[in-house]
Amino acid sequence: MQYNLLPIPPEPECPGDAVEGGVDVARGFRSSGVCGGLRPDGSDRDDMALVCADAPACVAGVFTRNRFCSAPVRVCREHLAASEVAQAVVLNSVIANAATGEPGLENARATASMAARELGCSPEQVLVASTGVIGSQLPMEAVARGVGLAVGALGSDEAHDLAAARAIMTTDTVPKRAAVRYVDPSGATYAVGGMCKGAGMIAPNMATMLGVITTDAPVGTPVLRHALREATSLSFNHVIVDGDTSTNDSVILLASGAAGGERIDEASGERYELFYRALLWVCSKLAQSIAADGEGATVLVRVSVTGAATPGDAELACRTVASSPLVKTAIAGHDPNWGRIAAALGRSGASFSQEDVDIDIVGLPVLRSGLPVAFDRQEAARRFELPRCEIACDLGAGSDSYVCWTCDLTHGYVSINADYTS
Amino acid sequence: MQYNLLPIPPEPECPGDAVEGGVDVARGFRSSGVCGGLRPDGSDRDDMALVCADAPACVAGVFTRNRFCSAPVRVCREHLAASEVAQAVVLNSVIANAATGEPGLENARATASMAARELGCSPEQVLVASTGVIGSQLPMEAVARGVGLAVGALGSDEAHDLAAARAIMTTDTVPKRAAVRYVDPSGATYAVGGMCKGAGMIAPNMATMLGVITTDAPVGTPVLRHALREATSLSFNHVIVDGDTSTNDSVILLASGAAGGERIDEASGERYELFYRALLWVCSKLAQSIAADGEGATVLVRVSVTGAATPGDAELACRTVASSPLVKTAIAGHDPNWGRIAAALGRSGASFSQEDVDIDIVGLPVLRSGLPVAFDRQEAARRFELPRCEIACDLGAGSDSYVCWTCDLTHGYVSINADYTS
Repeated sequence: MQYNLLPIPPEPECPGDAVEGGVDVARGFRSSGVCGGLRPDGSDRDDMALVCADAPACVAGVFTRNRFCSAPVRVCREHLAASEVAQAVVLNSVIANAATGEPGLENARATASMAARELGCSPEQVLVASTGVIGSQLPMEAVARGVGLAVGALGSDEAHDLAAARAIMTTDTVPKRAAVRYVDPSGATYAVGGMCKGAGMIAPNMATMLGVITTDAPVGTPVLRHALREATSLSFNHVIVDGDTSTNDSVILLASGAAGGERIDEASGERYELFYRALLWVCSKLAQSIAADGEGATVLVRVSVTGAATPGDAELACRTVASSPLVKTAIAGHDPNWGRIAAALGRSGASFSQEDVDIDIVGLPVLRSGLPVAFDRQEAARRFELPRCEIACDLGAGSDSYVCWTCDLTHGYVSINADYTS
Repeated sequence: MQYNLLPIPPEPECPGDAVEGGVDVARGFRSSGVCGGLRPDGSDRDDMALVCADAPACVAGVFTRNRFCSAPVRVCREHLAASEVAQAVVLNSVIANAATGEPGLENARATASMAARELGCSPEQVLVASTGVIGSQLPMEAVARGVGLAVGALGSDEAHDLAAARAIMTTDTVPKRAAVRYVDPSGATYAVGGMCKGAGMIAPNMATMLGVITTDAPVGTPVLRHALREATSLSFNHVIVDGDTSTNDSVILLASGAAGGERIDEASGERYELFYRALLWVCSKLAQSIAADGEGATVLVRVSVTGAATPGDAELACRTVASSPLVKTAIAGHDPNWGRIAAALGRSGASFSQEDVDIDIVGLPVLRSGLPVAFDRQEAARRFELPRCEIACDLGAGSDSYVCWTCDLTHGYVSINADYTS
């Protein structure tokens, strides 16, 4: 049987070869994941990670826009303003160090200073990132132990970057890494690799989104910062698990230049474009892995809106559908419930006429010109068993489009977020 | 033990005596609830309701702003544009008559015409309202049977308006009515009473929000329309169950004038103010009953935001907290999780500094000046057992405020919305 798929914007293509691994794929980086002992219950699960450049590297960071922002986010902003290079990122799970006032800021700065002392760089060249409970102070004795252990455990291979990716997991069920190697027009081979964590968009007792990305391409700091801003806005910012953004969300990008070649100092030209596409691909893979691992999720959902009158309308309509609890519970129930999608589009504020709207679910046309069309329910049921579900909406009001990644809303989500003891 | 409650805007006071009953409390109205047989499974559960004025009554209506709007909503808008008076409202559950195209419009008009014929008025004097599955056509044979039975069953007492309130229930677990009698400055006693249904804000397989309110006060149509617009914007529009608004949401207000007295023809003065306060009180009670009966809800939640820099900021911050799945699951878990509330405020777009924010949960201060404060966890646990939970946030950025009603997010919500067979 043939089904017509609505046109949807393409996903970023991989500009080289996808490879196993994370932050250690790019040359000039080492990493580790260790247990400093941050958990109050004395668990020996890893709780600190370190990503370290062999020499000061160009650096960029993007951070949460939440007005409640954590101490490590504030310290990162200070350090990135003070220095165009960085040598390390210290990450911890268990405690978010948010809503912790002046003592929290001092603890975040002290963490950076400890690592700087061990690594022989200035404190401004160390960035910090935390995820976990809001409102508690970091146990600095455990943090100090963790920093020492992490420096001692540094290594540069897949096992080490996997350990780092594991150490920052909270409600994540799998470690999240992605990496690509591509050939620069100069003939040099460059790599971009990264790790992230995130499952709910935020939760004092667990989640937030943290990401560290590395590259051995020789990219200058201003260009790096431009590229990261663009790439995160097209990847991580298109993920909606529950609509909540965190106090701690951070993505940090380091460029060692260790693969040699002339420095890329402009955000244009073939060499920049290729680097940017590699970065975007890694960010997109990491972002999708967050949506797929959304708290309680059983399926990765791609929502696209096409035919919008303006880019703003496309985004509004897409985000409204992707964050509708009714749409997300319907997907959990394997129900091709176009009515809930139509109602979400209708209340989104986007401008259109209901007579012009088409909706496809799992590739099946279910609404045409605002009216339901018969579809093969057995085929729909079969497709709902796949680990990925597509919702495609065309508003018939223009030519703008938007894509979001989300997941279904299940009993698992409620259990994770309601059934814990606080 | 003494706790300081943050200042929160007062709830509307009852300007008279709250009385049992619904649409039949006001003189000049009769109602009924009957089974036309709209359910495909042949169930004998009541599925149609009729509210009828003894003579043409002044009329007002407010309807969904969803761009996907149902056929009955379109027909109501036509009839209210054509006529300043109405004699009846025909309501049905089971089928929403939305996304049904031209045949759906014809069916809605035919329903009004049938009732008009039976009641001896013009079709424009009959309003229609539907709730249920989107995308299916009304079974007109059953509707015709229902209209006939409903006209025959009309009566004017508490049993009749309870039957009407029951007939429009979908996922509602209780019928919803509220009524008040108050003394006009002229010495006359006037009544305002109403019924509504709604549990999720919308769901093709079940919910939507419908309301019918009656009064025997002598209020002219233009004033009635002004009053209803104001009262719904301060009551029903402050309820958030899941952030979804329906294709069918409708509130209709009829004024029989049957209690006599000089007509209220201006939206000012003591007589108008008293009528408006009675209307607002009824609307608020009905709105709260919807939030309390939210799909899967175990607790009614009142969220207030004070100290906002602008009215828009207050609304934005309040709605963001009230619709956050993380906040709502925390309440389901009886967790005074101020971190999730703070994070929701922070991402809402409202302008404030985190150092100025205070949060109270169930009347206990949990955050002061952006920092957590110790609170009595046993006392919090005890208060979470009550059927109502207060979340009060002060942004410390100005003097504007907003209040929303919502409920917790439980396994029950997911079950209702995911575990049905479509």
